[in-house]
Amino acid sequence: MQVTKAIITAAGQDQTALPLQTVVDRAGNVRTALALLLDEVSSAGIDDVALVVSPGQAERYRQAASVHGDRIAFFEQHDPRGYGDALLRAREFAGDQSFLHLVSDHLYVTRNCKSCATQLIEVAQREQCSVSAIQPTRENKLAFFGAIGGAPLARQPGIYEVHTVLEKPTPTVAEQQLIVAGQRAGHYLCLFGMHVLTPGIFDLLEQAVAGLEDGQTANLSQSLHELAQSQRYLASQLDGERYNIGEKYGLLLAQLAIALSGDDRDNVLTELVELVAKQ
Amino acid sequence: MQVTKAIITAAGQDQTALPLQTVVDRAGNVRTALALLLDEVSSAGIDDVALVVSPGQAERYRQAASVHGDRIAFFEQHDPRGYGDALLRAREFAGDQSFLHLVSDHLYVTRNCKSCATQLIEVAQREQCSVSAIQPTRENKLAFFGAIGGAPLARQPGIYEVHTVLEKPTPTVAEQQLIVAGQRAGHYLCLFGMHVLTPGIFDLLEQAVAGLEDGQTANLSQSLHELAQSQRYLASQLDGERYNIGEKYGLLLAQLAIALSGDDRDNVLTELVELVAKQ
Repeated sequence: MQVTKAIITAAGQDQTALPLQTVVDRAGNVRTALALLLDEVSSAGIDDVALVVSPGQAERYRQAASVHGDRIAFFEQHDPRGYGDALLRAREFAGDQSFLHLVSDHLYVTRNCKSCATQLIEVAQREQCSVSAIQPTRENKLAFFGAIGGAPLARQPGIYEVHTVLEKPTPTVAEQQLIVAGQRAGHYLCLFGMHVLTPGIFDLLEQAVAGLEDGQTANLSQSLHELAQSQRYLASQLDGERYNIGEKYGLLLAQLAIALSGDDRDNVLTELVELVAKQ
Repeated sequence: MQVTKAIITAAGQDQTALPLQTVVDRAGNVRTALALLLDEVSSAGIDDVALVVSPGQAERYRQAASVHGDRIAFFEQHDPRGYGDALLRAREFAGDQSFLHLVSDHLYVTRNCKSCATQLIEVAQREQCSVSAIQPTRENKLAFFGAIGGAPLARQPGIYEVHTVLEKPTPTVAEQQLIVAGQRAGHYLCLFGMHVLTPGIFDLLEQAVAGLEDGQTANLSQSLHELAQSQRYLASQLDGERYNIGEKYGLLLAQLAIALSGDDRDNVLTELVELVAKQ
């Protein structure tokens, strides 16, 4: 399995401004959230990127992509039929290859020398199947993420065979269907917003979208759940964290995490302590 | 002296995106930096606002102003001849009245029940003259601000009669010209980005702009310095802090300060400690 393409979905109506927000990267340069996300993609050796946006947004995104702008293929989602439908807009771009998929409202901070995307692609290439990155997440955050249920793989810590995927489950539903052996109490394996998917996902998304009634939307989790029923599909915990910048204070925490793991760590920590002391 | 009008300058070429950045306000609502700044203005009872922008930006700013959008008069700065020139674009709007002036790349967090703008206007009305808000600022931040030199007023702690204003002085120059009695070592009285100005400032700005050669720009500090030579002009330390969101990590620190002084303080502090612990 070679992964040479990436698809980023950024067509959500409430999220059009997020990738354009300003963030200071680890090296201390002021960038957009989108540019950081594109750095993540190129860190994994991928130059071929599709961005799914709502109509008329391409030019703003191209500008926000800065140095990465020239190698993005734009696809528009004309009907707001959900995240699953948005991903489907880039089906032709992916063709018959497995691809890396990222959401546009997350930022990723690795804890080692390999980026999160690189770590994930290595698992997919070794296991030759679809793999979603996951992060153990406290119950009170379930409302923001898809979550998986599954069984830990023998002798491969942090890797799970997925049997269930649910979009934003309630704590009650999660407790009934998503308990995974070995997790801390009150924690679930939530999606990280980063996947390597085989092209089979598109058939499942087509079916989901074809079955939509007026006003309904298709999420990705439902189709991932079906994927788990039809082929080998893994989830992998990476050595890093995702920050959902669409969440309240998400951008704040993402920026802090990047700054505290970057070149300006000492300065930012000093300012932070001074600020907390003043309050 | 009645202060019923406010002028916000937002025409700086490197700052056009700043007021459109997303911030969570004290009540926990997601807003733009511009909307927070307009809240600050209305907190002082001012409904009549002029915004000086670069050409073609008015519509984006009106959208970012959300509920305040309808009562903004827009003025365009066609030639990028500096901050002093930008303020001059709104001369007609101010007419012969004193006005509140704010820069668009700062956010303000008061430490008491009165907003920073309200505190400043009270000083100006009591003293019947131009007053600039100031904040004692560490020497290493001098490169980001204008700074004043002056003499403390008797029996009025935190209020100074200004004799010198310098734009972004070097530490050496500051040490020679801007030492103010009673300040901590290595700290200077830097501008807060908030002023109440008498209309006399416009004549000084006209002169400064008329004297510009090609490619030169007019800053406000130079004209404030001249104001100090020609009429009574005070500086007032407010019970609050300004955060320069144009500075690297400025938005991060502003957001933290707002969150730690707002309704979500406990949640944010918990997340913060957890995040620092993980790094």
